[in-house]
Amino acid sequence: MGCNGSTLLSTRRAHVIDATIAIAPYASLAARFRAVRCRTLDLVAPLTPEDMMVQSCPEASPVKWHLAHTSWFFESFILREFLPGYKVFHPDFAWLFNSYYQTFAAFPEKRLRSSFSRPALDEILQYRAHVDEAIDRLLDTGSGPAPEALARIELGVHHEEQHQELILTDILHAFFTNPLRPAYKPAAHQPAPESVEPIQLIPHQGGLHEIGHKGAGFCFDNELPRHRVWLEPYALAQRLVTCAEFAEFIADGGYRRPELWLSDGWNAVQELKWRAPLYWDGNGNGASGTSEWSVFTLSGAMSFDQVANSPVSHISHYEADAYAHWAGHRLPTEFEWEAAEATSVCGNLPENLRAQSPAKLVQDHDAAKRWEWTASAYLPYTGFRPLPGSLGEYNGKFMSGQMVLRGGSCCTPPGHIRPSYRNFFAPATRWQFSGIRLAGRCE
Amino acid sequence: MGCNGSTLLSTRRAHVIDATIAIAPYASLAARFRAVRCRTLDLVAPLTPEDMMVQSCPEASPVKWHLAHTSWFFESFILREFLPGYKVFHPDFAWLFNSYYQTFAAFPEKRLRSSFSRPALDEILQYRAHVDEAIDRLLDTGSGPAPEALARIELGVHHEEQHQELILTDILHAFFTNPLRPAYKPAAHQPAPESVEPIQLIPHQGGLHEIGHKGAGFCFDNELPRHRVWLEPYALAQRLVTCAEFAEFIADGGYRRPELWLSDGWNAVQELKWRAPLYWDGNGNGASGTSEWSVFTLSGAMSFDQVANSPVSHISHYEADAYAHWAGHRLPTEFEWEAAEATSVCGNLPENLRAQSPAKLVQDHDAAKRWEWTASAYLPYTGFRPLPGSLGEYNGKFMSGQMVLRGGSCCTPPGHIRPSYRNFFAPATRWQFSGIRLAGRCE
Amino acid sequence: MGCNGSTLLSTRRAHVIDATIAIAPYASLAARFRAVRCRTLDLVAPLTPEDMMVQSCPEASPVKWHLAHTSWFFESFILREFLPGYKVFHPDFAWLFNSYYQTFAAFPEKRLRSSFSRPALDEILQYRAHVDEAIDRLLDTGSGPAPEALARIELGVHHEEQHQELILTDILHAFFTNPLRPAYKPAAHQPAPESVEPIQLIPHQGGLHEIGHKGAGFCFDNELPRHRVWLEPYALAQRLVTCAEFAEFIADGGYRRPELWLSDGWNAVQELKWRAPLYWDGNGNGASGTSEWSVFTLSGAMSFDQVANSPVSHISHYEADAYAHWAGHRLPTEFEWEAAEATSVCGNLPENLRAQSPAKLVQDHDAAKRWEWTASAYLPYTGFRPLPGSLGEYNGKFMSGQMVLRGGSCCTPPGHIRPSYRNFFAPATRWQFSGIRLAGRCE
Amino acid sequence: MGCNGSTLLSTRRAHVIDATIAIAPYASLAARFRAVRCRTLDLVAPLTPEDMMVQSCPEASPVKWHLAHTSWFFESFILREFLPGYKVFHPDFAWLFNSYYQTFAAFPEKRLRSSFSRPALDEILQYRAHVDEAIDRLLDTGSGPAPEALARIELGVHHEEQHQELILTDILHAFFTNPLRPAYKPAAHQPAPESVEPIQLIPHQGGLHEIGHKGAGFCFDNELPRHRVWLEPYALAQRLVTCAEFAEFIADGGYRRPELWLSDGWNAVQELKWRAPLYWDGNGNGASGTSEWSVFTLSGAMSFDQVANSPVSHISHYEADAYAHWAGHRLPTEFEWEAAEATSVCGNLPENLRAQSPAKLVQDHDAAKRWEWTASAYLPYTGFRPLPGSLGEYNGKFMSGQMVLRGGSCCTPPGHIRPSYRNFFAPATRWQFSGIRLAGRCE
Repeated sequence: MGCNGSTLLSTRRAHVIDATIAIAPYASLAARFRAVRCRTLDLVAPLTPEDMMVQSCPEASPVKWHLAHTSWFFESFILREFLPGYKVFHPDFAWLFNSYYQTFAAFPEKRLRSSFSRPALDEILQYRAHVDEAIDRLLDTGSGPAPEALARIELGVHHEEQHQELILTDILHAFFTNPLRPAYKPAAHQPAPESVEPIQLIPHQGGLHEIGHKGAGFCFDNELPRHRVWLEPYALAQRLVTCAEFAEFIADGGYRRPELWLSDGWNAVQELKWRAPLYWDGNGNGASGTSEWSVFTLSGAMSFDQVANSPVSHISHYEADAYAHWAGHRLPTEFEWEAAEATSVCGNLPENLRAQSPAKLVQDHDAAKRWEWTASAYLPYTGFRPLPGSLGEYNGKFMSGQMVLRGGSCCTPPGHIRPSYRNFFAPATRWQFSGIRLAGRCE
Repeated sequence: MGCNGSTLLSTRRAHVIDATIAIAPYASLAARFRAVRCRTLDLVAPLTPEDMMVQSCPEASPVKWHLAHTSWFFESFILREFLPGYKVFHPDFAWLFNSYYQTFAAFPEKRLRSSFSRPALDEILQYRAHVDEAIDRLLDTGSGPAPEALARIELGVHHEEQHQELILTDILHAFFTNPLRPAYKPAAHQPAPESVEPIQLIPHQGGLHEIGHKGAGFCFDNELPRHRVWLEPYALAQRLVTCAEFAEFIADGGYRRPELWLSDGWNAVQELKWRAPLYWDGNGNGASGTSEWSVFTLSGAMSFDQVANSPVSHISHYEADAYAHWAGHRLPTEFEWEAAEATSVCGNLPENLRAQSPAKLVQDHDAAKRWEWTASAYLPYTGFRPLPGSLGEYNGKFMSGQMVLRGGSCCTPPGHIRPSYRNFFAPATRWQFSGIRLAGRCE
Repeated sequence: MGCNGSTLLSTRRAHVIDATIAIAPYASLAARFRAVRCRTLDLVAPLTPEDMMVQSCPEASPVKWHLAHTSWFFESFILREFLPGYKVFHPDFAWLFNSYYQTFAAFPEKRLRSSFSRPALDEILQYRAHVDEAIDRLLDTGSGPAPEALARIELGVHHEEQHQELILTDILHAFFTNPLRPAYKPAAHQPAPESVEPIQLIPHQGGLHEIGHKGAGFCFDNELPRHRVWLEPYALAQRLVTCAEFAEFIADGGYRRPELWLSDGWNAVQELKWRAPLYWDGNGNGASGTSEWSVFTLSGAMSFDQVANSPVSHISHYEADAYAHWAGHRLPTEFEWEAAEATSVCGNLPENLRAQSPAKLVQDHDAAKRWEWTASAYLPYTGFRPLPGSLGEYNGKFMSGQMVLRGGSCCTPPGHIRPSYRNFFAPATRWQFSGIRLAGRCE
Repeated sequence: MGCNGSTLLSTRRAHVIDATIAIAPYASLAARFRAVRCRTLDLVAPLTPEDMMVQSCPEASPVKWHLAHTSWFFESFILREFLPGYKVFHPDFAWLFNSYYQTFAAFPEKRLRSSFSRPALDEILQYRAHVDEAIDRLLDTGSGPAPEALARIELGVHHEEQHQELILTDILHAFFTNPLRPAYKPAAHQPAPESVEPIQLIPHQGGLHEIGHKGAGFCFDNELPRHRVWLEPYALAQRLVTCAEFAEFIADGGYRRPELWLSDGWNAVQELKWRAPLYWDGNGNGASGTSEWSVFTLSGAMSFDQVANSPVSHISHYEADAYAHWAGHRLPTEFEWEAAEATSVCGNLPENLRAQSPAKLVQDHDAAKRWEWTASAYLPYTGFRPLPGSLGEYNGKFMSGQMVLRGGSCCTPPGHIRPSYRNFFAPATRWQFSGIRLAGRCE
């Protein structure tokens, strides 16, 4: 298997790549496996072994743990079971890099991951190569591997893509926690948009809609079964709320007015002393009202002008909900969101707005994407069946206390997103690239 | 206004009443107001002023605070606004007995309520009488009070009924916390049922259903608007899970098997060291497998035999979900629950089971009722509008992080429950009279 | 046994006594026992049963618990062992009212004491009468009780006096926590002193001193053995630091300057947001610099003028130490304090200052007394032997993590204090009547 | 300046040195400076850059932080002030690597040190070289640096030695936290002693003793002023308590018997679930009573047999005190410990015991040394004056809430210890190489 991973060790610190480089559609699962595994190494190329040790908040893991755990997934659920004669790389890794699969093996407390200086990064890279080689072998067998093995390899590929996004999310937090505030990559040279269209809520007709994954392609178990949901007419904004718009909410006392907040949200504001999105520094008291904010990104600290017209990011569900309340609107349900592509648009809309359904946007990969908090709790679809065996713990057991996010972010790997994709986080979570799309009545 | 409240002070400790005495349907709001206010005093008759000081867990309030706060509600939202010339009983009570209405007035931290030895209980009883007299006066005005005033008095009556239930819930916890374990009332003389019918899941056809309050009667804002929901066919158990059945779950390692639990639930089991429902003492290691449990109730500690065939109570949503999982079923959604009355039953069912829909049961008041955890998160119905003004904080701001319970319990006042009634608590809550009704596929 | 306790129930709320009334020297232990037991009831006379339920901070206990526990002490350590045929009042009280004697019986967690609405206050008063009668009987036996019984009764009397002081300390905190801020007693009519003498540090010669209790009178085990300590010359202030002087420290940024504080103290300032002594409200930003403070006392809230020249009270060891540092001095060791009476004063001092040793002041009971934080950790004297049996837990096991206070306060019962008396609290403790006496070099 | 540090980068992982290699006495401060700086690099040679990122408990810091902070000390307190034209290595390092000197500069929260992946280890090694070169230059100036500069360099050398010890203490905890339990160095080949002499308490006469540093050599400010202390006769054990002896305490229920413990200690046992010293694994239930313990060391996990006759290590003050209580003895005060060398031994002692005073042992560097918990709180000596300026924060502000340890451990650099040396930690601290020397009455 050839990818620039083989040269990672010598060149790791030498160049900084564009983390968002697109992957072309592949002819085969094997090609897709190789491409995704290589892309992970590309993503960590700007990082030192020391960077990969940092675990700066309970949500995050050290990057080197992500490198190991994604390999553990292939070894534990595919190679051990389906590759005859497979030799495990290291007997302790079965439990050491288990994340949370209680029925598979024991696992260390999550907070201990920051103590894993051993195995060394070099050894973890060898582990990756060992696993890559074995998967290649499994895929090259004459009659091909069992269909279940193929399905799990595909799951493993999507699993790795999820961790690619987490690597970026976690390293942003790690670098923000470092008082020196290093940057993961150089700033893009393209200028920020000087203005944006005003927000318009595009009306959608309701009715009985099918929700959930459709067709033969891959999806996670939580996107099934496809089932019917009744929707009343509703409206969805054609774009996300920008930083400049969110700054108006702050300037209007947004973080000081309990009547705008859910009760749990107001408690979070008080206890955690929130006064702006997670990576905003400063006080917003500039002459222009907002110009003294500075916003930390993967390219380091940005002046507010540079991000003013970008979608606000790194806010909790509570902040999204309070903003929507303040703006006189609400958040969409995940069903409204998913159905938007399929619903008829009511009334006469300008041509450029007619196509603006969220589901149409999810194929686009650009810096302006954010995970969109919905008003839906993360719950099983009626008739939900988790995957059999330990993989049943992948999604199902987290269906409590979390809210659904839809759409994807600038850090989501290209090709990873579907209209039926359900992301989920606890409502106080702010370390994600999460933003706001407003919804409202169809008027 | 005449009720036995006037003799409360002298007779308070002398007799123990049946807290579940029924209230006949009244001809008028005035009569209903009086009856409910009197019933509150009846409920606290077995308690001493010292008992009414105890606040034994974060969910609970001291009983005397409930007595004051329910009066504060009438004073703050009705008398101040609608009774010309009304003199407030005490100027500080406006904030002292405010629970959580941020837009109405400041309020003390909830945990401070246990320091309210002053105002004395006697003064709070005078406060009640002062408010009662003023509401009487308002209701007696020639042309009658404004419709908004009437609507708020009705809301206040339902509000007081909610606190009647909390008084019993809180005093049970208070007496359980007291190492001497006193009883609130004598044990009933009626013997516990010697056996129960096996659980049967009764099938219901799905389709498009109307959900939410219907008609002219009272409801809370969170039961509106009535709206359509699509349901797939489903099945509902004809009765709740009993203590004996729950003891089998425990004996089968229910609290030691992570695969049965939601992730948050398993964390709660570990951190809070749950090994049985809240008020179960002992170890369940009797010769019969369960006979060594003892269960604390409002009538003091009961042997397990006495409660074995009663519905299990005081369990969290997590425990309800894990039990359902263990039993091979699931919890119903709140929509399945509410629609059960209106759905056609599929197949040939014995006559005695045909009528067993939860919504038909809610009028029955008996010792076997428990709030029924559903699989639904507490969220706004599409088109939800909170009440205007401060009363908008009554329900809406709590629509986050909680699960819906349906049905009512043995401590819910008679006449307080509706098929559309939505109770809600955080999923780890165990101090409520909460139980399990199983649901499943329609087969 | 006749004391006004017999009429407590009917008159409890009717009058407010002076908590500091002096007790004349008694001819016998029996008389002293009776007087002390009566005085406890006098102290609680202004309180309602509801007041006696409040436990407003981890340091405090409900007053009714103090009433029961002090009786438990006599029952557990004297009557059970030395009065033949003694019938315990209630079998559960042996563990219910045990405070911390691990080797005597189990005991409930301290925080549960606020759930003890049962036994009712009335029952606890009967318990007191039961115990009083039995001790009377024991003391009246022909040949007199065993010397060990007499010694333990004397210990019980001193134990009860300690709890008398705690009753006042705890009720002050309870009433401060109550948002209505009730007063325990009316304010004294005597005007506050209009001015005080400047602080002067009186020099003492050092040398080899005997420290610890001397003579035949009662003392606690922690005051023994009397042993020698070498002191270098030192100086002690002739009076305590006043509120006005402490306000200067605040105005000079005392709570904002880390260089003045011990490291643990500075952490406490940050975490607990200290900015003034415990019972000071307001902001100290009056025109006069200090006049906007208000200070809560057993007589309710006082304007700063009323307390400006009284000793500052309710400060932690950390605050005392920081003040001393700011003032260019230090706190005295407990040995310097105790030896002050015995040391020669160096130099020519005015007559009125020559007698001002702390040990001479401890017999005076007045409103200006405060426990005086020393620079000494609470550790065993060399050769310390705890009392035998369970009573060995009285003092010894607390000799870790605490600082010694000397002298007594306005709430210490008259006759309870000795020059060798060692009080002790953790250095962050502020709910005590604790103040500052400065020490320094002998120059 | 030549030391093997110059080759550190290439050889870091190649060899494992003996961390306890002795440093010969040097002719000059310059030579001593160089030797100590080189020894630090030798100590970290077995570690990878990833190892140096781990911060596994609140007491610990990452090793790379120690490397930077010790250089920061020389830069901040010596080079900036005394070397004309000195260029700081990096302007941010002044606050980034400040530990706790409030009056010098701001500093990051201690827990953030684990996020310092940047500056990279390489940059920190360059920082060390930059500082080393500058100190060399300062020392080489014609007339020599100012006496104050020389005094501070000497302080910096001792400061670095303290951090050398912390590096070993912290890496042991880091490797214990790592589930793979790597070893820092290979096990010594010398066999453990097969037996030890029984403990004997050697009597010492009391009297007036001088305590504190004496003479012209270096000492910390907390060892001064030398002052007189009166001691009663006492006795001190001739050796430390061994692991085998401590295992007897465990087998006798030591961790289950509250009567043996200080109250705070018993609380720690309950809350932290202590049942053996920090690095003991297993259950001690072997046939031999103790053989199933395994003890983690810098050389990895050892069977109990290998350490049975070594001094017990990594215990808290509470455990030391409970053991002494169980053994019928007590811990010595720091004054008894320090005076032991100077006191006359009473009675007829065998020759081999006559010389066994702790102060005589402190020059010996061997694997059997442990810091010895004393019964003394860490408090200022009478007349204590902290160093002027920011260096006054070095010791003085920690004189609260900690206990003194005397003697040194197997990880203390050779030549670093004095009879008057006062180490100090909070009584619950277990991550240090801390042990027990018993004391008692002189009989």
